[in-house]
Amino acid sequence: MSGITSESHIWTPEKGLQSGGYISEGVISPPRQVKAAHDHVYDVVVIGAGYAGLIAARDLVNAGRSVLVVEGRDRIGGRTYTIKHEGFNYEMGGTWVHHTQPYTYRELMRYDLHTKLIKTRDDTQANNYFSINVPGSKRDISNELSSEIIGKVWKLFVDIDGQEGRTVCPLPHAQLENPFINRKDVEKWDSISCWDRFEAIKGQLNTEEQGVLKALLLSITGGKPDLKNSGFWDMIRSHAINGHTYDMMDPIWLLYKLRDGQSHFARLMFEEAVELGLEYTFRTHVEAIKQVNEGLNLVRTRDGRVFRGRKIICTAPLNTLNSIQFDPPLSRLRQEAANQGHINFMTKAHAVVKGSGYASWNGLAYPNELSAAYGDGLLPNGDTHLVSFGADYRDEFVLEEQPERLVAAFKKFAPFDVKSVVFHNWNTDPYTQGGPNFMPPNFTTKYMDALQKRQGNFFFANADWANAWRNFIDGALEQGALNANRVIAELRREDKEAQPSRPSL
Amino acid sequence: MSGITSESHIWTPEKGLQSGGYISEGVISPPRQVKAAHDHVYDVVVIGAGYAGLIAARDLVNAGRSVLVVEGRDRIGGRTYTIKHEGFNYEMGGTWVHHTQPYTYRELMRYDLHTKLIKTRDDTQANNYFSINVPGSKRDISNELSSEIIGKVWKLFVDIDGQEGRTVCPLPHAQLENPFINRKDVEKWDSISCWDRFEAIKGQLNTEEQGVLKALLLSITGGKPDLKNSGFWDMIRSHAINGHTYDMMDPIWLLYKLRDGQSHFARLMFEEAVELGLEYTFRTHVEAIKQVNEGLNLVRTRDGRVFRGRKIICTAPLNTLNSIQFDPPLSRLRQEAANQGHINFMTKAHAVVKGSGYASWNGLAYPNELSAAYGDGLLPNGDTHLVSFGADYRDEFVLEEQPERLVAAFKKFAPFDVKSVVFHNWNTDPYTQGGPNFMPPNFTTKYMDALQKRQGNFFFANADWANAWRNFIDGALEQGALNANRVIAELRREDKEAQPSRPSL
Repeated sequence: MSGITSESHIWTPEKGLQSGGYISEGVISPPRQVKAAHDHVYDVVVIGAGYAGLIAARDLVNAGRSVLVVEGRDRIGGRTYTIKHEGFNYEMGGTWVHHTQPYTYRELMRYDLHTKLIKTRDDTQANNYFSINVPGSKRDISNELSSEIIGKVWKLFVDIDGQEGRTVCPLPHAQLENPFINRKDVEKWDSISCWDRFEAIKGQLNTEEQGVLKALLLSITGGKPDLKNSGFWDMIRSHAINGHTYDMMDPIWLLYKLRDGQSHFARLMFEEAVELGLEYTFRTHVEAIKQVNEGLNLVRTRDGRVFRGRKIICTAPLNTLNSIQFDPPLSRLRQEAANQGHINFMTKAHAVVKGSGYASWNGLAYPNELSAAYGDGLLPNGDTHLVSFGADYRDEFVLEEQPERLVAAFKKFAPFDVKSVVFHNWNTDPYTQGGPNFMPPNFTTKYMDALQKRQGNFFFANADWANAWRNFIDGALEQGALNANRVIAELRREDKEAQPSRPSL
Repeated sequence: MSGITSESHIWTPEKGLQSGGYISEGVISPPRQVKAAHDHVYDVVVIGAGYAGLIAARDLVNAGRSVLVVEGRDRIGGRTYTIKHEGFNYEMGGTWVHHTQPYTYRELMRYDLHTKLIKTRDDTQANNYFSINVPGSKRDISNELSSEIIGKVWKLFVDIDGQEGRTVCPLPHAQLENPFINRKDVEKWDSISCWDRFEAIKGQLNTEEQGVLKALLLSITGGKPDLKNSGFWDMIRSHAINGHTYDMMDPIWLLYKLRDGQSHFARLMFEEAVELGLEYTFRTHVEAIKQVNEGLNLVRTRDGRVFRGRKIICTAPLNTLNSIQFDPPLSRLRQEAANQGHINFMTKAHAVVKGSGYASWNGLAYPNELSAAYGDGLLPNGDTHLVSFGADYRDEFVLEEQPERLVAAFKKFAPFDVKSVVFHNWNTDPYTQGGPNFMPPNFTTKYMDALQKRQGNFFFANADWANAWRNFIDGALEQGALNANRVIAELRREDKEAQPSRPSL
């Protein structure tokens, strides 16, 4: 059940850059299954087949609704997909899962995938250490020492109340509204940038610690290297949702992957929905969504088709909302948020390096196009897979044009023999126009509520404005599931109200 | 939407013991809504309206199935319910929730309850300290010091591999089957009791620490005071699911409650199901369940009624399985497990003590009928609510017969002026016959798989054999949801297969 995707790039010294043509279980082929007549009014048209769209569609067909999914890509999964190359599963986007993530874990258990995990961390290989390359310090240290250093700088960075954020963000799933907080406090912390916070605490750090913290932060935010457009609130929120303890950061963020890949998980969800009657059209670019009246909305595609739905669930990410023409237009606040956009324009890049030693290795580098890198498994031939995250370097280069620059960036960490570099450029991807959401200052308190709101019969479901795991797979599942629930309840109510007025047979 | 329950006991010095007659949102009145003809074959008959039964019923009616819930009590919620008395919500059973619990949190967000939480911990009152009363030590210490002591003894107790269990139980949701473990290791640790483990490490503890550890353990297991019938594995599993870190123990186990009570949460789930056609009969004791053929099962009640279902989801707890006559009989292993039963026969008791000071107080005592107690909010009149957990003292007294003994047990912690004691005796309750599951040695590895298995058209869903949060509300929701999924898929398959053979109209 795999197909060939047009996405992903692989660069090797021998062949240069090869774009697309890789095997992924996420590819849906043939790309269309539209059985209804062209003027059929679906109960729901779902725009996008990422996790938000998939779970929404699946829950809707489970509730007996007629649903059409319209997706621009040739595959499901959105910002999450797996390509299989040389016997290895490359997670091109969202990767790690943890049992603290409620929607993810419930789904994994539903599909019996919670037993089928693999680990990124592997302590058994030769180069079992941590490399630091920051101004004033280039050295290899033990993992224990790196945990100590990172734990110290991270805690200092996020500990705004002497209780690691417990007073300011006690309930990260309800960060803006709960009985224990004063919204003014949230607004205060939301108003500053990671740069502001860094400046406020840097006096307590030595030079190496400052470099380590900057590299760490940039690997999280994907913002500009000066940290000025990265909001501080998302760091507080992240620490809170990790349990207000650094101990949980690595296990949650970087440890467990799906053995058979994210695309396999997404595929199981998709197949369940298809079996229950889901219709779909992939490689179909949505141009416009129009609400005609209470019971009818039109979705117009670039190839001139029009689909009809009683409700629309739009799962387009924040940075792409302006690519769709909405009628009636987006609310003022949502439009402002879409215009500003989030600031995560990160690079996620994989490298294959010769030999198995580096599978146990990790490192941080600053300044560098790649900020953090991790050994992440072995290929069947015994070479090591590395995964790496970098900040927003769009001003300096475009990945597809200068992939060699990624090789150089990897080599800043350690003297790797790089055999290939694998990546998806999420920033030039028209269906994402950026990575997972990281908010600029003031964004959360100003726009979160508005982004979650429905507008008439348009529902907006995307991880970018999830309550809880905002830049995680879980956030996508959350928004998809919550919006599907709303739509299911509303359609039922409408059907019930419509019944008495029907002529009896 | 409240009613009067026949459950709960309140003792006061003035009035003695008053049993039942308390207000609970969990009470369903009138107790029956059975619309179908007496020989109607429901798609599913669900036995029990605890969280497992509620979520199963709700998911089934959401999938368009006809469902009847049969419940012995006058209320929903099973081992979890709230009574409102003198303006205070007493959680008589399951209480705390945390965002690491996937099913719970997904449901809370569905019903918009994740913002409506309150905290047990309150640092603002006068007696903001921790009382220890164990052999050789009776003193009041700071909360910081108590955390240090408890953290030390707990970590020593569960740290079997120098990595706090990360190698033996890396994936607590898949504890018996995952790529990182050797089942033999699990069997080894499952074979010993908490007493065995205590004996192995007690040399590293001073007298006070030994007493503190015993009190702590007994407040968790609800087993015999000598700890010999409490299995050690459930402790490893508990530490693992808390993230392998003591930091998360209090926040997960004892911090966040639902502002409007568990019965309110359960009620929202129930009302959703009723709106979608759920039928129900409360105060209805199930005597026997019989599979007649592939498509027909009978449920016989004590009052002589018979209900018919294509599938049966039985949510009876482990210790009550022998109260129902199954035909065909329970599998050999399930029957063995039911005969042995779990060992949690704890006391959960509430006290109201004069004044507000103790709302910030906590304590441990050993030996004592109550092992741990916590300040847990103020009544409208300013008095303090305490909640307390004790081990299996059934050999010595029955709560309803000697409630004064609870008063004495509370006073072992601190010189409280006890105005009332509030409790539900889960051990004499015919529908639980014990508290939440705590396994004896060897139980998990021997019986867990068998307990989760279906038998023909009987499905068994109870927190007692949940994959993950076994003795939590989340475990009930997990088993209810997973079994509902299975049943929904199977009914669909059967309906599909049946279709072609139907005569065309």
